[in-house]
Amino acid sequence: MANLRKVPPKRDENGYGFQGRAAYFDGPNPLVLDSGKKLDRFSVCYTTYGQLNKDKSNAILICHALTGDQFVAEPHPITGKSGWWSNLIGPNLLIDTNRYFVICSNVLGGCMGTTGPAENNPGTGKPWGMTFPMITIRDMVRAQALLMDHLGIDQLLCVVGGSMGGMQVLEWASVFPERVFSAIAIATAPRLSAQNIAFNTVSRLAIMSDPDWRDGEYLSQGVFPSRGLAVARQVNHITYHSDNLLQQKFGRMLKEKSNPAFVFDAEFQIESYLKHQGETFIDRFDANSYLYITRSMDYFDLAMEHGGYLPNAFKQSRSRFCLISFTSDWLFPTHESISIADALQNVGAPVFFAEIASDSGHDAFLLDEPAMNSALSGFLSDISTKRF
Amino acid sequence: MANLRKVPPKRDENGYGFQGRAAYFDGPNPLVLDSGKKLDRFSVCYTTYGQLNKDKSNAILICHALTGDQFVAEPHPITGKSGWWSNLIGPNLLIDTNRYFVICSNVLGGCMGTTGPAENNPGTGKPWGMTFPMITIRDMVRAQALLMDHLGIDQLLCVVGGSMGGMQVLEWASVFPERVFSAIAIATAPRLSAQNIAFNTVSRLAIMSDPDWRDGEYLSQGVFPSRGLAVARQVNHITYHSDNLLQQKFGRMLKEKSNPAFVFDAEFQIESYLKHQGETFIDRFDANSYLYITRSMDYFDLAMEHGGYLPNAFKQSRSRFCLISFTSDWLFPTHESISIADALQNVGAPVFFAEIASDSGHDAFLLDEPAMNSALSGFLSDISTKRF
Repeated sequence: MANLRKVPPKRDENGYGFQGRAAYFDGPNPLVLDSGKKLDRFSVCYTTYGQLNKDKSNAILICHALTGDQFVAEPHPITGKSGWWSNLIGPNLLIDTNRYFVICSNVLGGCMGTTGPAENNPGTGKPWGMTFPMITIRDMVRAQALLMDHLGIDQLLCVVGGSMGGMQVLEWASVFPERVFSAIAIATAPRLSAQNIAFNTVSRLAIMSDPDWRDGEYLSQGVFPSRGLAVARQVNHITYHSDNLLQQKFGRMLKEKSNPAFVFDAEFQIESYLKHQGETFIDRFDANSYLYITRSMDYFDLAMEHGGYLPNAFKQSRSRFCLISFTSDWLFPTHESISIADALQNVGAPVFFAEIASDSGHDAFLLDEPAMNSALSGFLSDISTKRF
Repeated sequence: MANLRKVPPKRDENGYGFQGRAAYFDGPNPLVLDSGKKLDRFSVCYTTYGQLNKDKSNAILICHALTGDQFVAEPHPITGKSGWWSNLIGPNLLIDTNRYFVICSNVLGGCMGTTGPAENNPGTGKPWGMTFPMITIRDMVRAQALLMDHLGIDQLLCVVGGSMGGMQVLEWASVFPERVFSAIAIATAPRLSAQNIAFNTVSRLAIMSDPDWRDGEYLSQGVFPSRGLAVARQVNHITYHSDNLLQQKFGRMLKEKSNPAFVFDAEFQIESYLKHQGETFIDRFDANSYLYITRSMDYFDLAMEHGGYLPNAFKQSRSRFCLISFTSDWLFPTHESISIADALQNVGAPVFFAEIASDSGHDAFLLDEPAMNSALSGFLSDISTKRF
């Protein structure tokens, strides 16, 4: 396992990195955060697909999940792999970029160009590390809203996201009700459960226990907590799959042999799979970003932001909602989506809810799930008809 | 968090440690292991409660789980806490030590006196560490059977265990069918699932990633991989509880304050709970033992030991079986117990199976579950009537 992580692509003098495919937006004013602190300067790195129409009514914002980024519909600049939703977004695809203008930005606290703990603090010229202020899901959304201002988009036709992306969708509808014509929140929840927080806690402990973490100052010290970050990734990665899927895919199959060798090296295929997940992740993700983003998820509690009563979050909402959950998702089970649907119905907001039968667990939203695609397609076509 | 672990109690010249409450049995011959290797010398450290009757028909063997030990019905010599099943075992309790002779031994590979990686290799005089041979659940049971020989017990009235203890129960019935009058296997499975192996894999990676693990030679080098072992414990500990239980018990409650402080220190009660679990565990458990015992669980596959067909494991069985599972146990779900019950019924073995409604998850077997106690009590009374 490499001990040093590849440096993330930096912007060049033209303000563009990633071979011109990602743009940077510099925040015009300091960003006041939920924690009470502020970021004097910040940038948001984003990608766009398609063209904004004349009346700016065809914009769709895609919000990414914990380990996602803005490379949603094009090859990833570090891994070379297809964009994480390239099966859904593109010309003539479900989210048709001949028709829609699609935007996806790296979240605040991220490590793919948007201001985060791996970037230099402009005040000191050194990496932020743990001096970076704590951010919340709502802070991420506020930064996205400023990007929309910059792009001249008053109202988004749709805000779409799964998992932590779905949390951003809910915040958008709550904080900027007039700017969200419709909202699609997939495999998400109005708050993290104790079990969710527990898994995040252990992941962070793994990172912070790595001596190469150096109290978060590894970048200035030329090291990287690869081992801790790999453990963190693996812990969370198990929770993205259903028990059944892992059993069907890997079961108790050994790597090559028919009999166990009785060793601690990876013998079972599930072990090699996890090892690979850890190894590839550390090449593309910053350890401190992992700490900050998981912590922002821990703090997410939409009801608490509105007096402890979830329907209050949507009182001003004018959006049409689409909620999707998956039967085998034990990280964000269906009852979480139902609690959102209940809150929306409580305030009379129009909501379409589908629980999709799938064995793929939480990660189903990233896969080709025909029933999900069909629900999304129907909803998008309906709201487009209403809007255009 | 302490970096050095308390040294486990050692036997004194009388062959007894732990204030006389645990006895040592020295294996008379080398023990040939499933891996093909052998242990030239080995000891089993065990506790007993009650008196063996004249015809030696009242012996009950208790098999402990991954992090358990032989201190099943008396205070733990390191933590001072009550024995892990002291609510069930004792005079006039469910397993009445006025009536039964109860034996519980630390498993092979363990760290409470039985030969394991933390003990010295008699051949070198140095701690075994990773030169300790790989052991299996069946090896643990073979060592226990030699202890029964030593105690003069031909047939056990009952072999009882939960989780990994249940795996030992199944092996007992399979390997020594004539020595097991009855068997109680709680919250267990005939083999580890891919998800189970995945969690164990991550736990071991956490230990082996700790620089103080020193390729397993930490004992000779005066250090201890406390941080790695704490992460490992926490990962597995999450899986012992149900989502619901964690939500009811901790939810999103903060430690002391009403508003989050936006810090990485433990803010939520669930975080403090996990932290405590990690901190107390490293005082009583050996890191290499954790590696060896979790690996023995990974390898456990009763069907594979019998040509890939589970009923074959019980073909020679003469035992009466009691199987118990818990509705909210997602680590060893009910369908695992059903697969055991099916295999037993397939060979005509008498089996009583109960799925207990409980919110306590996998750990329910360690708690006071009235419906479990009632099932156990009924079964024990029935087999005692049959035997005496």
